[in-house]
Amino acid sequence: MAEFRTESDSFGPIDVPAGAYWGAQTQRSIENFPFGPNERMPIGIVHALALVKQAAARVNRRHGLETEIAKAIETAAAEVVAGKHDDQFPLVIWQTGSGTQSNMNANEVIAGRANELLTGERGGKAPVHPNDHVNRGQSSNDSFPTALHVAAARAVADQLRPALRRLNERLAEKAAAWDDIVKIGRTHLQDATPLTLGQEFSGYAHQIADGIARVEAVLPRLHRLAQGGTAVGTGLNAPKGFDRDVAAELALLTGLPFETAPNKFEALATHDTLVELSGVLNVIAVSLSKIANDIRLLGSGPRCGLGELKLPENEPGSSIMPGKVNPTQCEMLTMVAAQVMGNAQAVTIGGLQGHMELNVFKPLIGANMLRSIDLLSVGMESFGLRALDGLEPDRKRIEELLERSLMLVTALAPEIGYDNAAKIAKYAHHHGLSLREAGLVLELVDEETFDRVVRPEAMLGR
Amino acid sequence: MAEFRTESDSFGPIDVPAGAYWGAQTQRSIENFPFGPNERMPIGIVHALALVKQAAARVNRRHGLETEIAKAIETAAAEVVAGKHDDQFPLVIWQTGSGTQSNMNANEVIAGRANELLTGERGGKAPVHPNDHVNRGQSSNDSFPTALHVAAARAVADQLRPALRRLNERLAEKAAAWDDIVKIGRTHLQDATPLTLGQEFSGYAHQIADGIARVEAVLPRLHRLAQGGTAVGTGLNAPKGFDRDVAAELALLTGLPFETAPNKFEALATHDTLVELSGVLNVIAVSLSKIANDIRLLGSGPRCGLGELKLPENEPGSSIMPGKVNPTQCEMLTMVAAQVMGNAQAVTIGGLQGHMELNVFKPLIGANMLRSIDLLSVGMESFGLRALDGLEPDRKRIEELLERSLMLVTALAPEIGYDNAAKIAKYAHHHGLSLREAGLVLELVDEETFDRVVRPEAMLGR
Amino acid sequence: MAEFRTESDSFGPIDVPAGAYWGAQTQRSIENFPFGPNERMPIGIVHALALVKQAAARVNRRHGLETEIAKAIETAAAEVVAGKHDDQFPLVIWQTGSGTQSNMNANEVIAGRANELLTGERGGKAPVHPNDHVNRGQSSNDSFPTALHVAAARAVADQLRPALRRLNERLAEKAAAWDDIVKIGRTHLQDATPLTLGQEFSGYAHQIADGIARVEAVLPRLHRLAQGGTAVGTGLNAPKGFDRDVAAELALLTGLPFETAPNKFEALATHDTLVELSGVLNVIAVSLSKIANDIRLLGSGPRCGLGELKLPENEPGSSIMPGKVNPTQCEMLTMVAAQVMGNAQAVTIGGLQGHMELNVFKPLIGANMLRSIDLLSVGMESFGLRALDGLEPDRKRIEELLERSLMLVTALAPEIGYDNAAKIAKYAHHHGLSLREAGLVLELVDEETFDRVVRPEAMLGR
Amino acid sequence: MAEFRTESDSFGPIDVPAGAYWGAQTQRSIENFPFGPNERMPIGIVHALALVKQAAARVNRRHGLETEIAKAIETAAAEVVAGKHDDQFPLVIWQTGSGTQSNMNANEVIAGRANELLTGERGGKAPVHPNDHVNRGQSSNDSFPTALHVAAARAVADQLRPALRRLNERLAEKAAAWDDIVKIGRTHLQDATPLTLGQEFSGYAHQIADGIARVEAVLPRLHRLAQGGTAVGTGLNAPKGFDRDVAAELALLTGLPFETAPNKFEALATHDTLVELSGVLNVIAVSLSKIANDIRLLGSGPRCGLGELKLPENEPGSSIMPGKVNPTQCEMLTMVAAQVMGNAQAVTIGGLQGHMELNVFKPLIGANMLRSIDLLSVGMESFGLRALDGLEPDRKRIEELLERSLMLVTALAPEIGYDNAAKIAKYAHHHGLSLREAGLVLELVDEETFDRVVRPEAMLGR
Repeated sequence: MAEFRTESDSFGPIDVPAGAYWGAQTQRSIENFPFGPNERMPIGIVHALALVKQAAARVNRRHGLETEIAKAIETAAAEVVAGKHDDQFPLVIWQTGSGTQSNMNANEVIAGRANELLTGERGGKAPVHPNDHVNRGQSSNDSFPTALHVAAARAVADQLRPALRRLNERLAEKAAAWDDIVKIGRTHLQDATPLTLGQEFSGYAHQIADGIARVEAVLPRLHRLAQGGTAVGTGLNAPKGFDRDVAAELALLTGLPFETAPNKFEALATHDTLVELSGVLNVIAVSLSKIANDIRLLGSGPRCGLGELKLPENEPGSSIMPGKVNPTQCEMLTMVAAQVMGNAQAVTIGGLQGHMELNVFKPLIGANMLRSIDLLSVGMESFGLRALDGLEPDRKRIEELLERSLMLVTALAPEIGYDNAAKIAKYAHHHGLSLREAGLVLELVDEETFDRVVRPEAMLGR
Repeated sequence: MAEFRTESDSFGPIDVPAGAYWGAQTQRSIENFPFGPNERMPIGIVHALALVKQAAARVNRRHGLETEIAKAIETAAAEVVAGKHDDQFPLVIWQTGSGTQSNMNANEVIAGRANELLTGERGGKAPVHPNDHVNRGQSSNDSFPTALHVAAARAVADQLRPALRRLNERLAEKAAAWDDIVKIGRTHLQDATPLTLGQEFSGYAHQIADGIARVEAVLPRLHRLAQGGTAVGTGLNAPKGFDRDVAAELALLTGLPFETAPNKFEALATHDTLVELSGVLNVIAVSLSKIANDIRLLGSGPRCGLGELKLPENEPGSSIMPGKVNPTQCEMLTMVAAQVMGNAQAVTIGGLQGHMELNVFKPLIGANMLRSIDLLSVGMESFGLRALDGLEPDRKRIEELLERSLMLVTALAPEIGYDNAAKIAKYAHHHGLSLREAGLVLELVDEETFDRVVRPEAMLGR
Repeated sequence: MAEFRTESDSFGPIDVPAGAYWGAQTQRSIENFPFGPNERMPIGIVHALALVKQAAARVNRRHGLETEIAKAIETAAAEVVAGKHDDQFPLVIWQTGSGTQSNMNANEVIAGRANELLTGERGGKAPVHPNDHVNRGQSSNDSFPTALHVAAARAVADQLRPALRRLNERLAEKAAAWDDIVKIGRTHLQDATPLTLGQEFSGYAHQIADGIARVEAVLPRLHRLAQGGTAVGTGLNAPKGFDRDVAAELALLTGLPFETAPNKFEALATHDTLVELSGVLNVIAVSLSKIANDIRLLGSGPRCGLGELKLPENEPGSSIMPGKVNPTQCEMLTMVAAQVMGNAQAVTIGGLQGHMELNVFKPLIGANMLRSIDLLSVGMESFGLRALDGLEPDRKRIEELLERSLMLVTALAPEIGYDNAAKIAKYAHHHGLSLREAGLVLELVDEETFDRVVRPEAMLGR
Repeated sequence: MAEFRTESDSFGPIDVPAGAYWGAQTQRSIENFPFGPNERMPIGIVHALALVKQAAARVNRRHGLETEIAKAIETAAAEVVAGKHDDQFPLVIWQTGSGTQSNMNANEVIAGRANELLTGERGGKAPVHPNDHVNRGQSSNDSFPTALHVAAARAVADQLRPALRRLNERLAEKAAAWDDIVKIGRTHLQDATPLTLGQEFSGYAHQIADGIARVEAVLPRLHRLAQGGTAVGTGLNAPKGFDRDVAAELALLTGLPFETAPNKFEALATHDTLVELSGVLNVIAVSLSKIANDIRLLGSGPRCGLGELKLPENEPGSSIMPGKVNPTQCEMLTMVAAQVMGNAQAVTIGGLQGHMELNVFKPLIGANMLRSIDLLSVGMESFGLRALDGLEPDRKRIEELLERSLMLVTALAPEIGYDNAAKIAKYAHHHGLSLREAGLVLELVDEETFDRVVRPEAMLGR
């Protein structure tokens, strides 16, 4: 049995592995862009392209595509969507900037599989042709950006929003559970007036709630699809209504409210909405950095740090220091956050360099967006499960620190004035006294007033 | 008459210029942060701080602040808002990260002016005290972030949205005016199928329309104010309802729908919403880069470029090449865009490094945000006025290029198949023929079909 | 035969796949950081870690490590370096920020393989113990950053510098070959005075030559190794001279001039040098963007663009437009460049967040650095081979454009003054005349002077 | 006396303020780019442009420029360099991307002043013409990038390197002074093995020493000047040797080793070297972030933080919390660092978008570079003076924490094995015991061994 078969495109014939479903253009791209397997086009984009082909086949049938061919395309495309042919998509991110080769990879594999279904023979262009049938009414220039929006919207719906929601719930639970734990506040990393540990965590929960709102604010634009613009946005060679109908089929197939983009020229030539989405992922990364950093700081110790929180011990922390336990989930999450910020920068740089009718940084933009969503989603879930769920306050330590603090003096300011209160705090600090002692020595407050006013539990704004 | 007077704070006495309204803490900051005058805190933040003081005085009056003092504070603050004391705010961005010193600058100048109003003598702490009266119920930790949101919201309302709207209108006008001009499309910077110049500009208009929607999506969070959280978010030392009441007064004073932040811990400790806003400014910068770049490309020439657009001539273009005219407004706008992208990065880096109850990159974040809004707003308006309004198509050149193009062959693909159409295009290209000639030579299409199908004006998707 | 065996660490026992060489800590990390296989620690870092282990075993032997054990470690480590156990390194980038788990993965696999070599039984801790023997005298805190420098230095030596050199040669060849082709210059994308195509390409060649110099400027710092600092930089538990000796062994093993870092505290707690290297990769990305963009612009067409260059045709360009050929290698390279710029941003953000004795963004920093080097190297080579080697000037088109240009008027300025020359250019432009015609009509120059002065071939600065 | 006089350029006449030295093109730019006064072209670039004009006048004299005119130009230019006409440079950064208008501003002011010197009448074009005399042999395209390199090199020499050196010295002094203070180390923000405070600061000093080396590594490329390339790099209209001679004069005027760029095409069309320099500033910003952050953390408290360092008290820290002192110089420096990182991003984005013979993001690139150098220089000096010089260790606190630590157990690992040492640490941690107590209870170590081995002062690697 032959190891290779011959496929051809407008550049001529080329050898393709006999077992492959793909054709000449995929093969050419493999050879023209020799990056390693880690650089493959994210599978989420491949699946989304197959969804586009499936939807297009349905619509094309209404416009005269033979039923048998349309059905074979649908079946083959559905198999790709289901992940049955992931190994048939060897192309890398770093190819043509329109994603044409990945679009052709999808066209060829689906045609190749459809031909197999119809004739028993894998590959080829008949009866199902990759361009004339699978790609009918489409261009890479509209299919690929459609796939990017579909892939991103699915990743947001399936991964990001659930992960944000679960993280928000976990943080809100902690906020509720620890609402009675009064602790020292810190501003400028310096001791400040008290709050509860629950209040502190309510701030984190709120950040994530806002993160959800931010993602949702982008969705109306993310659900708009370029499909139907074809080569330059005019819709040449696509039947009338093709844009709306494909969007409707995609909505049906995915359960997401896709609709056709109101302006196809913008939808092909720019990826402003994906830059926007990356910007929102950047904000979420900023939020997560803050939360993970705080928990790392509050959990610093065990004996020479702040020590207010006890982090779950998940693994040995050091190859040289026996018994060391480290905030590894915090470290993972802050690294993930840094990557997401870098990815947002890559997307911005790709987004700003479009020329005329087409932005040709599409694979870069799509790959970074999907990777960022995946990293954030897995990272948040792991952090929630392995750092938050087992997180415990060290109540004794928290109380000890609270009692020492000088900033409780703030409660005295409305009674004795800011300047006098400042004198007490400074005197206590420089003489190693308690506030009460300093206040009485300086005769700036009497015992009764001090004991009435300086009560941490009354300083929580309730 | 003395050149200096003595003011004091909890650190002791310090000389202040006799003519200054400010006090000891402002003076100390001048000396501690010796950056040049170009690095001053943006005046928009100063005015917003004064609005906060004015609103707080109104609310404090209801909570027992003497009417005379409250009124003097209000008057003095209103003068600052009106720009009458801009020279009294010498402090730079690079100070304490909470903006405490700018907050104290506002407290001191307003107290100093209020004292002058009440006693005839400038400065000092009596009868109006900067901390006990002007700053009453407040902390820098809530006043300053409130001022950042107020300043940003005002800049968005007064500068950014109007500028976006005018740019959108200008682009939409061009799109309408040029709707009949059929031209060659370009994808990958290579010749593609035709569209109209109006369609091309409709894409730009749509980008800006989306930009407006993006800004509006942030406003619900931007209109939330930290005021009332005081030192750490608990609201210690602020009367009950102070947060809501100050927000209401600020809404009244500005005409913008401010409301109190639902979670004050988040509002002090993070600036996620300003990172988000910067991300949106980043998207707008990306949009503007694309638009200005396209116009620069389309206007390249006059004789050796694409030459489809004629840009207005605003100034001599070269100190050495006589008669040269350059796309200077495009260059200005793309430089502005690059700065806005850099500023967004600075804001991200500041935003991610908050610690516990306070983010201490507030002045950095605020200054970059306001500068970006200003640059974008002035830049868009200037670009609209000086590059778009006088922009003219070169109809002759456009037509000439359209006729030459090989990509009109695309219209043949549904008739004769993709592969045959490709053969015609390649043959024409390599033999310097027209498509029609090549098609007939190759006998892949007959005259009638060619003339019926290959008509640019029928390829516009209408 | 059992599917699993039991391994243990200070956290207790855990099941490990029977066929795996790794032990308890690797297994724990697999379970604690559930990211996908695309997120694996780059294999270059794994190989570098094994080089460290091999070098350390040699040095430890001199300090009393039993010969049999040391030799087994060496053998096992060498196998890892040679790529024989790549599948034994399943850990992902997103783990503890010190890379401890990847260090333990290396320790465990090498111990597990060494034990197999000595006892026939895979895995375990005897006779070779992962910590006490393989990791002897080391900490993750010095081994992992050492591995990052070794991996980066190898990637620079094996991939980046050769790729830069070849690209520089290719560009220099073109510069030489095309030195006689006079063409129109373009500044501001507007017609300017002429130069040769060779001069244009000499600029690109120079950019890459400078890129090589930039990389070389970092090498003195990149060749400094943290090894010997152990846990916090003091070298606790490492024998005297261990740092120098391991660096010397690594130099021997790799042929690169490694030396021990003069300050181990800096070497563990910061990655300034890797931030610096990323900054240099960022410059190279900027250079490549410029070069690829220019070639894309000069190759725009075929009939409606600048058309001065003819790019090699590597594949069909469009799934809808038959016969279209696109500058796909330019697009690949500019996308790669954008990714490298984003990666540099991620490295900066990781680099700035170190705390006290350790920066815990090490895997992020290392992974981005290696990916950027790989992307740039493969990208440059592919671009050179598939875009530059076959690049051809369109001499006819170049000449045609040159003759049309108005900016040849510049040569007249020293003769008739800037203002008069400007009048000629403007008149020619607005009346569609040649410069010569306009000059004579305006009587600002005589025929003889014009013909003597306005000669493109005399305007090349030779 | 008239308020205005009329000046003219190739666009016609225009009114200029009578008192101004500038001419038509400057005036036109003021009107065409209506940004505020904070957006002015940095004065360092203006002075550098005047240096270029001064040097060019000297060289032009050798090539036939009348002595009287050359001398007047030199005198006028020297006045500008000396800062006597700073108010005559009203143009903003956001102008044409070649800096042509600022170049013409310099040409016009110098001509206008030279004319005044020669005729008593300010402004105009005779006897000294801005283009034909002041700009002789030059183009904005080579003068402006020359000015950027000159301005950057001067700022590096006058500001940045001295500031880096002083900071390095200050840190090295602390390292020496505190070499005997043994303290707990922290990795992952968790307790680790001990080191001295001096060792910790030696790491910071080394970072800055490396920073100096990084800056120096760029200088060979920074000292290369574009001058002599004129419009597109060919040197058209410049006399032979003009490039070398102007560079030599600039070297003489500044005392810096300027030389002519070996490739003028690269020098006009790209700013890779300024992107490189910005990348180095980015590394320095990363270093400073780390140092300032560590000092802020070590100084956290006064009673509820780590408290190992006592920061100088420079000003009151809070408008609401009396007696609070904050690490304001750390906050200033980390904000400055964030800005520098953002600026580097803006420079990267400007640097990557050059087209053919000219990069037209020159003013953006130059302005960010100079601002970053200024911010870093002033910031480092202020930080050194106000945070480092008065920094004091809290020896009592440092000792107290050291004694508590569990990570001293690391010293036992070579004696009793990693696994046993880990058991001791964990037992001590979970039972609130000292290591010694835990070791004896578990019978894993005897008293003699423990006391011999576990001595912090012996764990410093000396």
